[in-house]
Amino acid sequence: MDLNPGLVFLSELVGTAMLVLLGCGVVANVVLKGTKGFGGGFLMINFGWGLAVFAGVIVSIYSGAHINPAVTLGLLAQDLATGADYDWALLPIYLGAQFLGAFLGAVLCWLAYKQHFDVEEDPGAKLGTFSTGPALRSTGWNLITEIIGTFVLVFVVIAFGAQNGDADASVPAGLASLGALPVALLVVGIGASLGGPTGYAINPARDLGPRIAHAVLPIKGKGSSDWGYSWIPIVGPIVGGVLAGLLAPTMIAGVAGFAA
Amino acid sequence: MDLNPGLVFLSELVGTAMLVLLGCGVVANVVLKGTKGFGGGFLMINFGWGLAVFAGVIVSIYSGAHINPAVTLGLLAQDLATGADYDWALLPIYLGAQFLGAFLGAVLCWLAYKQHFDVEEDPGAKLGTFSTGPALRSTGWNLITEIIGTFVLVFVVIAFGAQNGDADASVPAGLASLGALPVALLVVGIGASLGGPTGYAINPARDLGPRIAHAVLPIKGKGSSDWGYSWIPIVGPIVGGVLAGLLAPTMIAGVAGFAA
Amino acid sequence: MDLNPGLVFLSELVGTAMLVLLGCGVVANVVLKGTKGFGGGFLMINFGWGLAVFAGVIVSIYSGAHINPAVTLGLLAQDLATGADYDWALLPIYLGAQFLGAFLGAVLCWLAYKQHFDVEEDPGAKLGTFSTGPALRSTGWNLITEIIGTFVLVFVVIAFGAQNGDADASVPAGLASLGALPVALLVVGIGASLGGPTGYAINPARDLGPRIAHAVLPIKGKGSSDWGYSWIPIVGPIVGGVLAGLLAPTMIAGVAGFAA
Amino acid sequence: MDLNPGLVFLSELVGTAMLVLLGCGVVANVVLKGTKGFGGGFLMINFGWGLAVFAGVIVSIYSGAHINPAVTLGLLAQDLATGADYDWALLPIYLGAQFLGAFLGAVLCWLAYKQHFDVEEDPGAKLGTFSTGPALRSTGWNLITEIIGTFVLVFVVIAFGAQNGDADASVPAGLASLGALPVALLVVGIGASLGGPTGYAINPARDLGPRIAHAVLPIKGKGSSDWGYSWIPIVGPIVGGVLAGLLAPTMIAGVAGFAA
Repeated sequence: MDLNPGLVFLSELVGTAMLVLLGCGVVANVVLKGTKGFGGGFLMINFGWGLAVFAGVIVSIYSGAHINPAVTLGLLAQDLATGADYDWALLPIYLGAQFLGAFLGAVLCWLAYKQHFDVEEDPGAKLGTFSTGPALRSTGWNLITEIIGTFVLVFVVIAFGAQNGDADASVPAGLASLGALPVALLVVGIGASLGGPTGYAINPARDLGPRIAHAVLPIKGKGSSDWGYSWIPIVGPIVGGVLAGLLAPTMIAGVAGFAA
Repeated sequence: MDLNPGLVFLSELVGTAMLVLLGCGVVANVVLKGTKGFGGGFLMINFGWGLAVFAGVIVSIYSGAHINPAVTLGLLAQDLATGADYDWALLPIYLGAQFLGAFLGAVLCWLAYKQHFDVEEDPGAKLGTFSTGPALRSTGWNLITEIIGTFVLVFVVIAFGAQNGDADASVPAGLASLGALPVALLVVGIGASLGGPTGYAINPARDLGPRIAHAVLPIKGKGSSDWGYSWIPIVGPIVGGVLAGLLAPTMIAGVAGFAA
Repeated sequence: MDLNPGLVFLSELVGTAMLVLLGCGVVANVVLKGTKGFGGGFLMINFGWGLAVFAGVIVSIYSGAHINPAVTLGLLAQDLATGADYDWALLPIYLGAQFLGAFLGAVLCWLAYKQHFDVEEDPGAKLGTFSTGPALRSTGWNLITEIIGTFVLVFVVIAFGAQNGDADASVPAGLASLGALPVALLVVGIGASLGGPTGYAINPARDLGPRIAHAVLPIKGKGSSDWGYSWIPIVGPIVGGVLAGLLAPTMIAGVAGFAA
Repeated sequence: MDLNPGLVFLSELVGTAMLVLLGCGVVANVVLKGTKGFGGGFLMINFGWGLAVFAGVIVSIYSGAHINPAVTLGLLAQDLATGADYDWALLPIYLGAQFLGAFLGAVLCWLAYKQHFDVEEDPGAKLGTFSTGPALRSTGWNLITEIIGTFVLVFVVIAFGAQNGDADASVPAGLASLGALPVALLVVGIGASLGGPTGYAINPARDLGPRIAHAVLPIKGKGSSDWGYSWIPIVGPIVGGVLAGLLAPTMIAGVAGFAA
């Protein structure tokens, strides 16, 4: 199918904004002072982010719902590894829309929780609502955790799409090829299982877009945007996604078009 | 399809009553003194309300399961924005049934938890079982939160229905066009992510019907029904739903009949 | 379809035993001393019972997976109300298998948690693992809560089955006509929303079978089996289920064969 | 269908590694010092393991997704009981890949949580991340609990596959014949309901593979690998799975090819 570049941009923009609005929203609900969900726990954050993916996928079916540069680049790597055609002109459109959408979603989240940002006294809780940070800081180990988590995401998405012959051929590859519900559950699982050390960015746009929003918005009493850490949730997920794209064709057994 | 007005009324009445019985029920279970679910947490409330939508949708398929004036008015706005026909005669039937159903559901919830209302000493917990209230009171910000939350609900419902070509054309548009399970999960997600500041009415009937029930029922030791706040969970959801109906046709990419 | 009475008995026996093994199991895990799930909360119990229904339905598809006398009698009431044929010879087979299966499931649960029953000192926790008890004891209000909860269960099951034209006509009506996943979610929701006052028996076999097991098993340090309360989780669910069967045909809009 | 032995090995290896990476990961998140999910509770562990099965099944569809020797041996027992053909040459391939995959998954989990293993001071928490251990140690009762839990797993899987005529006949029998989502929910349920006494290995590879990893990896401050207990989560699940395979054909009513 031929994708309209303008609609791809719109689709990824809306999908990523939805993802980040709901995803950062659940963190705000659990960590900011005075909310009704305060102290709701990590499983609530896992479900919130999973269902954020669910909503984000549903509104960006047109573009296959990448809503994550690690997915876009992982699928690119898969196409290169298997010698498939790749429409390079769409690459900057996917990536640009994802980062812009993530920024806009974070702005909407801030508006929805404006008063709670105002009364919250801990700058760390405010930044934590926008972007991820490590439980224990270590460049190498934090990178490894993000690589493994994103590898799982992209690998399972490719496995499912391939085994189902990309069931709905009218939809381009992406999170949508796994379906909104399964991919939501997958993200709940990755968060619960691999989110402990770094808060599972597993998506460069999800982390950088809100971090820029944190830096530019007039958030009362905000602290540092922690730019020193900011490259890890970009590089880690990209490496993990690309590795999954490269390895999936030889590691997933028996799929048509895959190594056999 | 031609809808029978009497059956539309019945369908929305039963569906909204089911929604509010189960929705207010989970709040009663978590907040009222002496229940088995006391202190169960916000995620339990999110799941309870999501599954309340699930049950409500299943029993009101005939009318498309709006069970929410913000959905009814959002779909009206969508039809106006796209120049589609609209059956104005059904509008008061949908709305009337929803408010009456919500009232009846709240009465049933009160009966199910009668003894716990009696032993509960905090009037705020009693009102909170019926209707929403803000964590931090502010007309403007509370409205914005309700607008954003309801926008997400109606926007995702329209996106799903449109992308699936309103898969089951024998069912009118509404929550049923998303399917009972997906819309339930969507509501779990909206609650977890955007319910922190106002308790997510996102439905004028869900809030006003039970508030009237709170005012008229002989609830032991009840306090104010907080009428000063009562218009916010009516106006906010209507604005959010209408905005979603107006913007969805131009913001959802590539759907047949949508801007392309 | 003609059902083989022996296979109906087997199907309901296995399904109800599975239901009660897993259902009582999650309560044991949450309330008995020294388990890994101790103190896991009411939402965990809700999910455990919902998934117990899930497993029970899957293994008793042949008989339509009633696994609950309130469902069996509710469907009987529906048939009487609509003038449909009813195979009276199967009635005692359904009911007998359900009570016997529930007894056997409780025995298995006791074996799985044997050591934790031994070290638990509170007789109430032991009985609570087997059977339900009220948070606040009141014949009238406890009955009403059980009636409402079971009404919701049977009403939604009938609504779903009818609207889908009992999709799989090779399966008799019952929980299976809603499907294992939806009915599991419905039970999670009923538990979270209406389980607070009485612990939601909503199934006479689920309560009486384990209560008999509690009475006859050599459980170390056990106390009373609370026979004074035992009739409420029998009568309440039967009344609720029968009411749902009688009212569903006129309260569910637009279904083929239903009032229109 | 004829299965390629090399692809069966690859499929089971990747699937079991995915299972154990995510499954041990959620335990690490909940029990190791300083993680973001610390103290998340047993329900979070149940969901994490269920969704670990979900991801593991999706990436090992080719081989039917046994990813568990108790499933492999249970299906073997079923074939023997019903006189079906069995491809004995594949047996060691399934088992070998499962144990090796589980070992590799545990290594990946250790890498993802490396720093938290380093700061954790309790050797028991470290071992508990890798392998199961009993809440109350008793050879007989621990065996019985594992037998019952695994019986439920394999019995429900066989019931579902049989009743659906092994719907996708291009996929060999296994967890995949139940579908990734239902089997994930089933495992959530078994964990919540029957995981209290022993931590629900219900899979010899899931327990032994990580235990070997615990023994050979240079884990800082690790204690005993508790080899005295190690045979119970091997023998118990095998007995439970084989019993399910032997009894399912006569205990599941009305299935084509089953006793009627």
